[in-house]
Amino acid sequence: MQNILRLDLEDARLIVAGAERHAQKIAVPVCIAITDESGQLVAFIRMQGGKVTSSTIAIDKAFTAAGAKKATHDYGVASQPGAPAYGISSAIGGRLIVVAGGLPVVFENEVVGGVGVSSGTPSQDQEIAQAGIDYWLSERCQ
Amino acid sequence: MQNILRLDLEDARLIVAGAERHAQKIAVPVCIAITDESGQLVAFIRMQGGKVTSSTIAIDKAFTAAGAKKATHDYGVASQPGAPAYGISSAIGGRLIVVAGGLPVVFENEVVGGVGVSSGTPSQDQEIAQAGIDYWLSERCQ
Amino acid sequence: MQNILRLDLEDARLIVAGAERHAQKIAVPVCIAITDESGQLVAFIRMQGGKVTSSTIAIDKAFTAAGAKKATHDYGVASQPGAPAYGISSAIGGRLIVVAGGLPVVFENEVVGGVGVSSGTPSQDQEIAQAGIDYWLSERCQ
Amino acid sequence: MQNILRLDLEDARLIVAGAERHAQKIAVPVCIAITDESGQLVAFIRMQGGKVTSSTIAIDKAFTAAGAKKATHDYGVASQPGAPAYGISSAIGGRLIVVAGGLPVVFENEVVGGVGVSSGTPSQDQEIAQAGIDYWLSERCQ
Repeated sequence: MQNILRLDLEDARLIVAGAERHAQKIAVPVCIAITDESGQLVAFIRMQGGKVTSSTIAIDKAFTAAGAKKATHDYGVASQPGAPAYGISSAIGGRLIVVAGGLPVVFENEVVGGVGVSSGTPSQDQEIAQAGIDYWLSERCQ
Repeated sequence: MQNILRLDLEDARLIVAGAERHAQKIAVPVCIAITDESGQLVAFIRMQGGKVTSSTIAIDKAFTAAGAKKATHDYGVASQPGAPAYGISSAIGGRLIVVAGGLPVVFENEVVGGVGVSSGTPSQDQEIAQAGIDYWLSERCQ
Repeated sequence: MQNILRLDLEDARLIVAGAERHAQKIAVPVCIAITDESGQLVAFIRMQGGKVTSSTIAIDKAFTAAGAKKATHDYGVASQPGAPAYGISSAIGGRLIVVAGGLPVVFENEVVGGVGVSSGTPSQDQEIAQAGIDYWLSERCQ
Repeated sequence: MQNILRLDLEDARLIVAGAERHAQKIAVPVCIAITDESGQLVAFIRMQGGKVTSSTIAIDKAFTAAGAKKATHDYGVASQPGAPAYGISSAIGGRLIVVAGGLPVVFENEVVGGVGVSSGTPSQDQEIAQAGIDYWLSERCQ
């Protein structure tokens, strides 16, 4: 039998809040999704101006990062033509996302969830996702 | 060209807040989804104890209620064996939900969004969805 | 080798026009879809007020009627609990529709296409689909 | 609450008419799809000779352009191997199209819909989509 560490709704809301605040600061409205460590959705928002096509992509970035315990941009590198994971982006009905903006949420060296952001450039999305995690970590320490 | 009324993220959050509060009051943890008038997701939470299988169902209840401008329990009646819409529940890849818990969000006689709740009994889900709309209406009037 | 009779875009537009005119007359805005005899989409409109959830349903009603050479309401009868085709409504990923509003388009005793209507009551949808076929037949005879 | 601008069926028909006329002029039969600003289908035709496989592609090009507020050929550039959005083409169950032929429809600086064309070469498809928008703009100004 095993014991699983998993973020809860309060954690998810802190990550959303930190990501949203950063998105507002850099004026890039996005979709933000948080999943638990199994890749199951816990919280989601589409900010005003976030793209309709980004809802599923944000959810799937979080799903990929949590489930594969890996940032989506790492898959981006690993799935280039000629690289070992080439072609993986169409796996799981297209849910495995290899574009930046999905990060695993790590606590005490365990992946406890995932965050996915979409609608900006991939690097903006990643930056916003990281801001969400940073804010959550800073709030937890208080 | 036409002009459409649509709920925004602030509206969606008020509906989530009202639904969550009622769910806590009756001690029924649920998934709560809000879509815009086109059935596109705007906000989502899975409360602690909300069922993993209910995430998609909540989202699809909100999608159905907004897109079809109709409460999902009305489809439940209309799709009974022998009734006119029998068999509709498997339409749109199974996204058309005929179980109670999905309500259109109406403002000035227009459907501006949808709310979907899942994890409780269908009548609890519907009651929680309604509580979300009621809270939103009461906050808007202040 | 065989020769297939198939409606063309001009036929499809006549059916759409006749259906739309009738929908306007009875003040029921709908989605109208026309497929060829293979169930492949040829023409589609969503009238102002037609439901977003009805787009796929209208297309799938036309697909079902053309592909199965059978009105969707006939499937409605045949798929009731205890009847021989019970459960068929979830076939083909839910594309097989058993609710009224899908009619095969017949010419010289061959099915040459399908028409599907959705957003009204099932009987209104069927009436509108029939009006489309009737208009097309009357225009062809001139 | 927010107010959204959206093309209506009359607008959609003008875009289809302009695109169809241009497709006839250059003798390239195509599928033409128009969606609203949320990516929901409003009108569709498959011209005689338009490819069966192009129906879904045309619809998804319009969906992508409207939902992501971006021409599909811009995604084509951004998703090349080594570029930031590499791998995005399989997202949303493959509905996100990165091949030329999908354009957002813009009115008063807002995306009010999308047009998608498929069956020709990608550059022909894009040219036909643009002709649809140009015709619509010229008709609106009269």
